[in-house]
Amino acid sequence: MELKSKLCLVVLVFSVLLAVSSGLDYKERDPGLRQCMHQCQHQEGYDEQQKQICEQRCDDYIKQKRQEERQRRRGGGDTSFVRYDENMEQYQGGQQHQQFDQNPYLFEDQDFDTIVETDQGRVQILQKFTEKSDLLRGIANFRIGALITKPHSFVAPHHFDADCVFFVFHGRPTISMVRGDKRESHNLERGDILRVPAGTPVYIINRDENEKLFVVKLLHPVNLPDQFEAFYEGGGENPQSFFKAFSPEVLEAAFKTERDELRRLFGQQRQGSIMKASREQIEKMSHSSRSSEGLWPFHGDQPSTPFSTSSKSGPFNLLRKRPSQSNRHGRLFEADSSDYKQLEELDLQISFANITRGSMIAPFFNSRATKISFVLDGEGFFEMACPHLASQESSQGGSQRQQRSSSPSYQNVRGDLRRGTVFIVPAGHPATAIASRNNNLQILCFEVNAKDNVRLPLTGKKNVVSQFEREAKELAFGVPGREVDRIFNKQDGEFFLEGPNNQQQGRIRSVV
Amino acid sequence: MELKSKLCLVVLVFSVLLAVSSGLDYKERDPGLRQCMHQCQHQEGYDEQQKQICEQRCDDYIKQKRQEERQRRRGGGDTSFVRYDENMEQYQGGQQHQQFDQNPYLFEDQDFDTIVETDQGRVQILQKFTEKSDLLRGIANFRIGALITKPHSFVAPHHFDADCVFFVFHGRPTISMVRGDKRESHNLERGDILRVPAGTPVYIINRDENEKLFVVKLLHPVNLPDQFEAFYEGGGENPQSFFKAFSPEVLEAAFKTERDELRRLFGQQRQGSIMKASREQIEKMSHSSRSSEGLWPFHGDQPSTPFSTSSKSGPFNLLRKRPSQSNRHGRLFEADSSDYKQLEELDLQISFANITRGSMIAPFFNSRATKISFVLDGEGFFEMACPHLASQESSQGGSQRQQRSSSPSYQNVRGDLRRGTVFIVPAGHPATAIASRNNNLQILCFEVNAKDNVRLPLTGKKNVVSQFEREAKELAFGVPGREVDRIFNKQDGEFFLEGPNNQQQGRIRSVV
Amino acid sequence: MELKSKLCLVVLVFSVLLAVSSGLDYKERDPGLRQCMHQCQHQEGYDEQQKQICEQRCDDYIKQKRQEERQRRRGGGDTSFVRYDENMEQYQGGQQHQQFDQNPYLFEDQDFDTIVETDQGRVQILQKFTEKSDLLRGIANFRIGALITKPHSFVAPHHFDADCVFFVFHGRPTISMVRGDKRESHNLERGDILRVPAGTPVYIINRDENEKLFVVKLLHPVNLPDQFEAFYEGGGENPQSFFKAFSPEVLEAAFKTERDELRRLFGQQRQGSIMKASREQIEKMSHSSRSSEGLWPFHGDQPSTPFSTSSKSGPFNLLRKRPSQSNRHGRLFEADSSDYKQLEELDLQISFANITRGSMIAPFFNSRATKISFVLDGEGFFEMACPHLASQESSQGGSQRQQRSSSPSYQNVRGDLRRGTVFIVPAGHPATAIASRNNNLQILCFEVNAKDNVRLPLTGKKNVVSQFEREAKELAFGVPGREVDRIFNKQDGEFFLEGPNNQQQGRIRSVV
Repeated sequence: MELKSKLCLVVLVFSVLLAVSSGLDYKERDPGLRQCMHQCQHQEGYDEQQKQICEQRCDDYIKQKRQEERQRRRGGGDTSFVRYDENMEQYQGGQQHQQFDQNPYLFEDQDFDTIVETDQGRVQILQKFTEKSDLLRGIANFRIGALITKPHSFVAPHHFDADCVFFVFHGRPTISMVRGDKRESHNLERGDILRVPAGTPVYIINRDENEKLFVVKLLHPVNLPDQFEAFYEGGGENPQSFFKAFSPEVLEAAFKTERDELRRLFGQQRQGSIMKASREQIEKMSHSSRSSEGLWPFHGDQPSTPFSTSSKSGPFNLLRKRPSQSNRHGRLFEADSSDYKQLEELDLQISFANITRGSMIAPFFNSRATKISFVLDGEGFFEMACPHLASQESSQGGSQRQQRSSSPSYQNVRGDLRRGTVFIVPAGHPATAIASRNNNLQILCFEVNAKDNVRLPLTGKKNVVSQFEREAKELAFGVPGREVDRIFNKQDGEFFLEGPNNQQQGRIRSVV
Repeated sequence: MELKSKLCLVVLVFSVLLAVSSGLDYKERDPGLRQCMHQCQHQEGYDEQQKQICEQRCDDYIKQKRQEERQRRRGGGDTSFVRYDENMEQYQGGQQHQQFDQNPYLFEDQDFDTIVETDQGRVQILQKFTEKSDLLRGIANFRIGALITKPHSFVAPHHFDADCVFFVFHGRPTISMVRGDKRESHNLERGDILRVPAGTPVYIINRDENEKLFVVKLLHPVNLPDQFEAFYEGGGENPQSFFKAFSPEVLEAAFKTERDELRRLFGQQRQGSIMKASREQIEKMSHSSRSSEGLWPFHGDQPSTPFSTSSKSGPFNLLRKRPSQSNRHGRLFEADSSDYKQLEELDLQISFANITRGSMIAPFFNSRATKISFVLDGEGFFEMACPHLASQESSQGGSQRQQRSSSPSYQNVRGDLRRGTVFIVPAGHPATAIASRNNNLQILCFEVNAKDNVRLPLTGKKNVVSQFEREAKELAFGVPGREVDRIFNKQDGEFFLEGPNNQQQGRIRSVV
Repeated sequence: MELKSKLCLVVLVFSVLLAVSSGLDYKERDPGLRQCMHQCQHQEGYDEQQKQICEQRCDDYIKQKRQEERQRRRGGGDTSFVRYDENMEQYQGGQQHQQFDQNPYLFEDQDFDTIVETDQGRVQILQKFTEKSDLLRGIANFRIGALITKPHSFVAPHHFDADCVFFVFHGRPTISMVRGDKRESHNLERGDILRVPAGTPVYIINRDENEKLFVVKLLHPVNLPDQFEAFYEGGGENPQSFFKAFSPEVLEAAFKTERDELRRLFGQQRQGSIMKASREQIEKMSHSSRSSEGLWPFHGDQPSTPFSTSSKSGPFNLLRKRPSQSNRHGRLFEADSSDYKQLEELDLQISFANITRGSMIAPFFNSRATKISFVLDGEGFFEMACPHLASQESSQGGSQRQQRSSSPSYQNVRGDLRRGTVFIVPAGHPATAIASRNNNLQILCFEVNAKDNVRLPLTGKKNVVSQFEREAKELAFGVPGREVDRIFNKQDGEFFLEGPNNQQQGRIRSVV
C-alpha cells in the first residue's frame, strides 16, 4: 500500500545516512534520527497519524541501530560502557536490557553519548535531562559526564563554556588549569572533588601506570541553559585546535609569524584529544605540582590535611572527611560549601553513600534539593514514591477517578542500579536505595538547589511521623496513637538499615 | 456533512469520558478537554481550520460542563466558591458570569481547580498563570491557592515540593511543622502570615468551633517551575499515604515490621485529607503550642508582641502592624523582609488594603514588583492602563497605524472584583481599585520581585508629575505649566481617595 | 497551477495589508509578516512542504518591502540608520548589503525596529536575540536600543518596565528621574554611563545646540523575559499619555477635577514623544541639576571627580577612567561594579575599545561573560571560532563524519563591522576585532554574567598556551616544546596589536 512503500523509502534513505555517520557530538544526539524525522514530517500525503507512526518507527530503528553499533565497536558482548574492569579491553558479559524503559528518572548506557573516543580513552555525556522527560526541566541546566582514560594518558588542553565539578573515583589524575596568568596544577586521587570554573583551560594526565582514570563530572553551562561546547587550545587536525578557525592573515598578525609556520604548528596533531604520554612526560608533569608563579604549599602527593581547604582552589577529598553517617550497614560522606567553598556558587552539595551488601538506606526525602545520583560501583535498586506519573497516566487515559477529588495517588518508581546508572530523585520525593546481597552499592550524589536543604527520614530514628502529636497520628492514620508509635518506633536504626530479605533483582520494573 | 458527523463523534466520546471523571488534579486542568483536543488533532481529513473550529468547540463544551458540574455539586444556585457566609452550607445567590472574559489579568471562579474536597473542606488552586496568557510568563513560577475548612477540622500531614506563604483571613488555625528533628506548632489567627518552607511536613487544625477556616496561599514550586505536588505522610486509602508506594519487602525492612501490620496501618484512613476532629483532640493540639523539644516562648494565644519576629519561624501579623496609609477612605498594611525575614528568600512583600465603601486607591504603579491580588471581601472594580493588549490587537488585525511610528497606545483593562477574584498588576502598569458603595473592598496582595520596589503615585500628594520641572510639564502636555500644576495639585488626598460618584458596576468590561 | 494562484492571492492580500501599515512597535516585528504567515498556515490544500515554501516567500517579500520602505522614508540612498554625520539630514552613500546574512551573531540595520520616530529624533530597538537564533537564548533577557535626537530636543516623560543602562556617545543630555518623592537631574556627557532603574519616570533633553544626541542602551525587562513597554506620563494625543486609559469617572475622582478640564490637559500634545525645546527651556532645565529637595553636590558641568561615585545615583564616566590597556594600537576602558555600583545588580561590566586604524585586538576569550558589542564608529571586521554552527551544519546535512567521534570542528564566523553593527561573542568563544586602515574602530561592549569573569589572551603577552608545561605543549601540538614556545612567544604585544597587512574588507563572509 502507499503508506508502506513510502515508509520503505524513508527507511532506505535513513539507512544510507546512518551508514556514513557514526558517533555523536555534544548537541545532536542522533543526526540520523533527525534526518529520519525530517523525512516523516515532509512526506507528501501523510496525515498527522501516519507521521506519528513513521516517527515512532524512526525512533525504534535508531535505538536498535545504536545498540548494534556499540556491539560492533566493542567486539560484541555487552555494550554497557560501565561493565569493565581494571583492564579496559576485557568486558564482563551481562544481561542486556533490551526493553527501552519508560522510567523518566532513570538513565542507562544508551542514554549516554560518546562525544570523544580514542584508543586511549573516551568522554561520555548524559543526554539532556529534558530529552528524557519534561518532568526534569527543573534541572535542565545541569549535565552529567564521565571521563575514562587508560593509565599514563594525556587529555589535550581545552576549556568548556560550562562550570564543571569533578569527582575522582579511579586513577590518579593531575589537573592543570590556567587561571589569570598562572597555571595551577593539582595532583588528585580517589575521593577528590574539584571545581573547574567555566572558561578555564585545563589539561589532564593520569599519572598512574596501572589504574585507569574514571572521573564523574557535573557541568553547568553558561552560554546556553542545557548545552555546552569544548574549545581545544592545543591540537591540530585532531583534536582540531580552534586557532585554525581564524583566517591566515589574522593569525599572522596575531602571532607575528608566517602562515606556513603556523600551518605546521596547527597541522601536526592527529592522535585525538586523549593520547598516550611517555613515562618521562608523566613524571615531569606529576611533580610540577606548583604553579609557574607563587607558592602552592598544599599540592603534591600529600594526604589531604585539615588545612587544605584554605587553599582556595585546591581539591577537597570527600572520602577522607569524617562520615556523617556510619554503621555496619553503610557510610555516608557529605560535602557542602562549608567544606569546599566553590560549591556555594553552584548551590551544590555532594555526597557519597557506600551501602554495605544486603543493606539499604532508610526511606527519606530532601526538603528542597534534587539528587542527581551516579552509581559508581555495585548493584542494587532504588524505589521512589512519585505522584507525577500517576496523574499523567490517569489524565491521558481518562481512566476512572474517585468521585470526590482527593489526594494524589503515588506510583512505585523502581529501577535497577548498576555501575554507570544515573537516577534522579526530585525534592520532596520519598526514596530509598537497596544494595544487592553480593556487592556494596556505591553512589555519588550531586544535590542541586542545596541551600537550606534538610533530609527528612521516614523510618528509623528521628523519623518524621514520630514528631507528630498523638492526636495528629490518630487522625492521620485512623488507628490508635500507640499503634502508630509502636510501628514507627520499632526500627531503631538510622540512615543505613538491614536490607530486605527476599530481594527481587532483575529487570527494571518501570512505571508502565 | 462529513465534518458534522465527525464532530458529533468527538463530542460523544468526550461526554462519555467526562461522565466518569470529576474533579481535577493539580496538573491536568481538564483530562476530558485534553482528550477532546487530541481527537480533534488526529481526525482524519481535518485541515488546520477545521481542527481549530473543533478545538474551540471542545473548549466551549468543557467550560459549560464544568459550570453545570459545580452547580450539581452545590445543589444548584450560584457556584462561585467564594459566595458563602460563615455557615458554609448556605450560599448567597449572585449574578453568574456566563461570558468567558478575555481579560488576561483577571481570574475568577472557573479558573480555580478543586484539587481536594471532602465534606469538611476543600483546597482550590488557581490555574497556571501562563494557561490564561503568555503575558503572565514573568510570574509563571508562582501559584495561588486557598484552603477552606469547617470548624474543628484537621488537615492530614503532608508536604509540598513548593515554598508556601499563608495568610489567615478567617478561622483560627494551628499549624504544626516538622523542621529538622523537632516539631513547631503555631497558633495563628486572622492577619497572620506564615512561611512554610518547601518539603516541610505540616498538619493543620481549625481550633475555632464556629468560624470556618479561610487561608490564602502563595506557592513557589522547587522541582518544576509552575507545578507542585502534595506528599501525604499520614493517610491510608484516602488520602493515600506515599508509604504505600514502596514495595512490601522494602517497607518490612525499613520498619522492621511484618507487612500485615503495615497494611493495617496504611489501610485504615478513608475520610479524605480534610476530616473532622473531636473537641478533645482540638483542645490537646491547640495547647501543645510548644515544640517537642526546646523553648518557644512566643507561641500560644498571645497577641503578637513587638518581639515576636525574633522567633525565627513564627508568624507575623499583618493586621496588627501599624498601617502605612490610613485615612477615612481606607487603610493599607504592608509587610516586607524587615518585618518578616522569611519573605526575603522569596523576594516577596505582602500588603492588605481595606478600601472604605465608596472610596478608591489613587492610581499608582510599582517600579519593579508585580502584584498578585486576591480579593478577600467586598465588591468593586479595578482599572489598569495596558500597552500589551493594544499592540497585540492592532498587530493581529493589521489595522491602520500612524504613518510615523510613535508611542504605544493604552487600553483600559477593567474588571469587576468580588470575593475570590484574583487580578494581576504587572510592574510599571498604572492601576487603581475602587470599592463599591455598599461594602468595603478588602484585597490581599502578594508583591513579587519586591526588592527595591517603589510605589509611584500618579495623583494626589507626592504624585510623579508634580516632581517634573515646569518646562518639562509644558513640553510634555503642551499646556502652560501652571495649568498642569493646577490640575495635578488639586487632589490633596494620599493613597486612599473619595471614589467616583457614578460608579458603573455590573459586567466585566474586558478588553475585547 | 493551483499552487501558484493561491500564492498570488496570498501575496495580494498581504500587499494590501502592508500598504496601510508602516513602522513597527516593540513587540510585533512585522504584523504584515504575521498576517502573511497566517494565510500560508491556513491555506486549504497546502501540505507541509507547500506551506514552507509559502512562508519563505512571505519572509523574502517582507524583507524586500522593508528595505524599500526605509529608502522611501529617507528620500532614497542608503537606508542605514547609522550612516549619517552630525547633520542628520545628509546621508553618506554606502554599499547596500543586499544579501541577508546567515550569521547568527551579527545584527545590522534591518534587525533594528524604529519604535518611535518624529522629525526631532527616533528610538530604535534591536530585535529579540532569540528571533535571530536560538543559540542566543542565554542572553534572551537583554535588549539593545539607541536614542538619537537633534540638538535642543526634549524626550517626553515616560518609564519602562525594564532596567536600563545608558552610554552617551554624542551630545550632552540632561536626564531627570523621579525617584521616591524627589527628582534627580544629571547633566551627562560623552562617555557617561548611567543606570535608570525599572519603573523610574524620566525625561531627557539634549542641551547641546549643535551636536546630535546619541545614546546606546542596554535594557533588562522585569515583567516579561525579553519584552518591555514604555509608559508615557506626559503626553496627550501623541504620545498618548496612559492617564487617558482610565475611565472618565475614575479620573475625575482621582484628580478631583471635571472631566472636561482633564480632556483638555490630556488632549493637547500631538508632537510625538521627541520634540523641539526652545533655548530658554533648555537653559532652565540644564541648570536645574539639583533635585527639588536635598543637596546634590556632584551634579552640573563639572568633570567627573574621583568622588563622583559616592553620589549613589550619579553617572560614571567610562572614558575619563584610566584605560586598562593602552598602546599605540588602541585603548581599552573598563568599568565594573567597583567603579559603578549599580552595575552589580545586573551582573554587568561595560568596556569601550578604541582600536587604532590598521590595528587589531589580540584574539582572546572571556571565561564566563558574554559580550554584546555595539560599534559606535569606524569600520573593520570581527572573527570568531564557533563550534555550534559547524555541528548544526553537519548534523542537518548528515555529511561524513570521522569514524571515531572526536573533538568538535570550528567554523570561522566573520562579519563586517561599521557604525551601528551589533555583534555577540559568547563566553568561551575565541574572537578578535580588526580596524580598517582608514578609521579607528570604536566598540562599546556590554558584558553580561560578568561576575568573576576573566579575559584569557590567546596570543601576545601572558597568552594561555605559554602557561602550559613543556610536556603538555609537546603532547598537545605534536611538535617539540621549543617550537611551540618559539611561535607563542614571538608576539610581545599585549591586547592591541598591529593588524593584518592584506585586510580583506567588503562583504560579510558569513558562515553559510
